[in-house]
Amino acid sequence: MSGDWRKEFGRERDRLNETVLSSGHLGIKRFFALDTQAYEDGALDAGTKELMGLASSMVLRCDDCVSYHISKCYERGVTREQFYEVFNVALIVGGSIVIPHLRRAAARMEELFGG
Amino acid sequence: MSGDWRKEFGRERDRLNETVLSSGHLGIKRFFALDTQAYEDGALDAGTKELMGLASSMVLRCDDCVSYHISKCYERGVTREQFYEVFNVALIVGGSIVIPHLRRAAARMEELFGG
Amino acid sequence: MSGDWRKEFGRERDRLNETVLSSGHLGIKRFFALDTQAYEDGALDAGTKELMGLASSMVLRCDDCVSYHISKCYERGVTREQFYEVFNVALIVGGSIVIPHLRRAAARMEELFGG
Amino acid sequence: MSGDWRKEFGRERDRLNETVLSSGHLGIKRFFALDTQAYEDGALDAGTKELMGLASSMVLRCDDCVSYHISKCYERGVTREQFYEVFNVALIVGGSIVIPHLRRAAARMEELFGG
Amino acid sequence: MSGDWRKEFGRERDRLNETVLSSGHLGIKRFFALDTQAYEDGALDAGTKELMGLASSMVLRCDDCVSYHISKCYERGVTREQFYEVFNVALIVGGSIVIPHLRRAAARMEELFGG
Amino acid sequence: MSGDWRKEFGRERDRLNETVLSSGHLGIKRFFALDTQAYEDGALDAGTKELMGLASSMVLRCDDCVSYHISKCYERGVTREQFYEVFNVALIVGGSIVIPHLRRAAARMEELFGG
Repeated sequence: MSGDWRKEFGRERDRLNETVLSSGHLGIKRFFALDTQAYEDGALDAGTKELMGLASSMVLRCDDCVSYHISKCYERGVTREQFYEVFNVALIVGGSIVIPHLRRAAARMEELFGG
Repeated sequence: MSGDWRKEFGRERDRLNETVLSSGHLGIKRFFALDTQAYEDGALDAGTKELMGLASSMVLRCDDCVSYHISKCYERGVTREQFYEVFNVALIVGGSIVIPHLRRAAARMEELFGG
Repeated sequence: MSGDWRKEFGRERDRLNETVLSSGHLGIKRFFALDTQAYEDGALDAGTKELMGLASSMVLRCDDCVSYHISKCYERGVTREQFYEVFNVALIVGGSIVIPHLRRAAARMEELFGG
Repeated sequence: MSGDWRKEFGRERDRLNETVLSSGHLGIKRFFALDTQAYEDGALDAGTKELMGLASSMVLRCDDCVSYHISKCYERGVTREQFYEVFNVALIVGGSIVIPHLRRAAARMEELFGG
Repeated sequence: MSGDWRKEFGRERDRLNETVLSSGHLGIKRFFALDTQAYEDGALDAGTKELMGLASSMVLRCDDCVSYHISKCYERGVTREQFYEVFNVALIVGGSIVIPHLRRAAARMEELFGG
Repeated sequence: MSGDWRKEFGRERDRLNETVLSSGHLGIKRFFALDTQAYEDGALDAGTKELMGLASSMVLRCDDCVSYHISKCYERGVTREQFYEVFNVALIVGGSIVIPHLRRAAARMEELFGG
C-alpha cells in the first residue's frame, strides 16, 4: 500500500489550491510562487531545504505541512534513518508536544517504505 | 449546498458549549460573556472586530475559530474579495504554515457564496 | 459508555509509539523515557505534575496531549470540579483560542464521569 | 515627548532592513514587497488592514510588530478608544499571556497621544 | 541581594497596569479581574494553580509571566527542588526552545533563595 | 569587531547553564545531553542538523536559539549566501512575524563576516 496517501493527499491539495488561486488574488498567488521558489536549488541545495522545511513544520506542529515535506524528501531519496534524525531534532527543539505529530509522521513515512 | 456547514457547525458548537457551561464554573462562564462582548459595536464597529477576529484566528491556526468568524463575517456582508484580503494579510503575517488553514477557510467561505 | 475512548485512544497511541520506537533511534527512545520520568513522584507529587501537564497541553492546544493527561488525572482521582479549575486556568492563560480544545476536553472528561 | 519612540524605532528598523536587503536575496526582497502591498487599499481599506495587522501581531506576541502597527494606525487617525478595543480583542483571543505585550503597547500608544 | 528583582518588577508591573486600567475599558478591566480570580483557592488550592500558571507560562515562553508566577510560588513556600521539577516538566513539554527562558527563570529563582 | 558577540554570548550561556545544572536535577541534565547529541553526526551530518536547528529556531522566534545556531553554523563554514537561504525558508514558513528576528539574525551574522 506504499505511497497511496501521497496521491490522495496531492489531489486534495491541488483541488483546494485551485480554489484559492482561482480567486485571482495577486498577493496570495505571489506568495505561493515565493513558497515554491524557496525550496529550489540555490546556495543550499533543494534537498537540504526540504529537510529544513520538514523540521520547521514539525516544530510548528502542522500535519499537512509535515506530510507535504515527507513526500518531497522521500522523492529526493531521504532514507528512513535520516527521517528519524529529522524527527529527533524536531522532538528535541519542540518537546513532547511534538510527539502526536511525530507519531503520525512516522506512520506516514513508514508507509512510503512499505513498513 | 450553500451555508450547510454553518448549521451543523453551530449545532455542535452549541451542544459542547452547553456541556461546558452546565458545569456552573463561574470563571469560564464570565470569560464566555467577555468573549461575546469583545465583538460588539463600540469605539470600533462589530464588523471591523470580526475581521480582526478572523485574521487573529488564522495566524493562530485554529480552524474552528476561523469557521466561526467566517460565518459571522458573512452574515455582516463581507464580500468574497474582502475575505481574500483577510486571508492574504494572515498569510503574510503567519507564513506558509497558515496555508492548510487558508485552503480550508477558502473552501468553507466559497460554499457560503455557492462557489 | 464511560471511559471507552481511553481504551481506543491508548491502543492507537501504543501502536504508533511502537512504530516510532521500533526505529531503534536512541535519542527518541531516551526522550520518551525522560517524558515518562518527568511525571513521576519527586519533589512534587505525580498528581500535581499531571495537572501541570494538562494545563500546559491546553495552552499549547494539543488535543492528543490533553486527552492523555485527562486520562492520567482521572485515574489519580481528579474530580469534575477540579478539571474545570484546570480548564479555567488554561482558558485565562491561553485565551479564546483555547475554547475549541476546552470544549472537546470537557466532553471527553464528562464521558469518564458518565456525564 | 510624544512620538519620540517612532523616530528611533523607524531608524533602527530602516538600518536593519538595509542590512537584510543589501544581501540581494531575491526571495526575501520579494517577500518584503508583498508585506508592504498586503496593507494597501484594496477590497478592504488600508486602515482596516492595519487594525488586523495590529491584532494579529498582539496575539502572536511580537513587540516590534505591535509597535510598527501602532505607529501606522496612529498615523491613520485611530483613536485611543479604538486602540483599546483592538487590545481587548487581542487579549480575549490570546489570553493573559498577551498582557505583558498589551502593557508595553498601551504605554507606547499613550506616549503618542501625549499621555 | 535576594528578592530585589521582585520589588522593581512589581513596581513596573503596577505602573503599566495602571496605564492600561486608567483607560476605563470595561472588557480589559473584567479580564484582569478574571485573571486574578483564576488563581484563588477553589476546587484546587491556590498553590497548585500557581504551579500550573508557572508551567504554562514557561511552555508559552513568556519571561514576564514566568517571573510573576515564580514570585507568587516563592511566597507560597515552593522549594528550590520543586521549582526545578516545574522547570523540568516545562522543558519536556516545550523542548529546547524553552531553555533560554528556563535559564533566566532559574537565575531569578536562585536569587530569591540567596543563591 | 567580528565574532565579539559570540564570546560574551557563550560566557553568559555557560554561566546560566551552570546555574541550572548545579541544581543536580537529573531530568534536566539528561535533556541537555540529548540536546547536544541531537546535533552530532549520524545518518545526517552535523552541518545539516545545525541548519535545521537554525531554521526551526527562527520559525519559533527564539533569538537566543537563533544566535546559538548562527554561531555553530558559522564555525562549520556556512557562507553568507547560505545563511540568507535559511533566513528565506524561515521567513516563508513563519511569515512577517519572523522579520524582527531575521533582522537581528542578519545583523549578528554579518558581524561574524566583518560586514
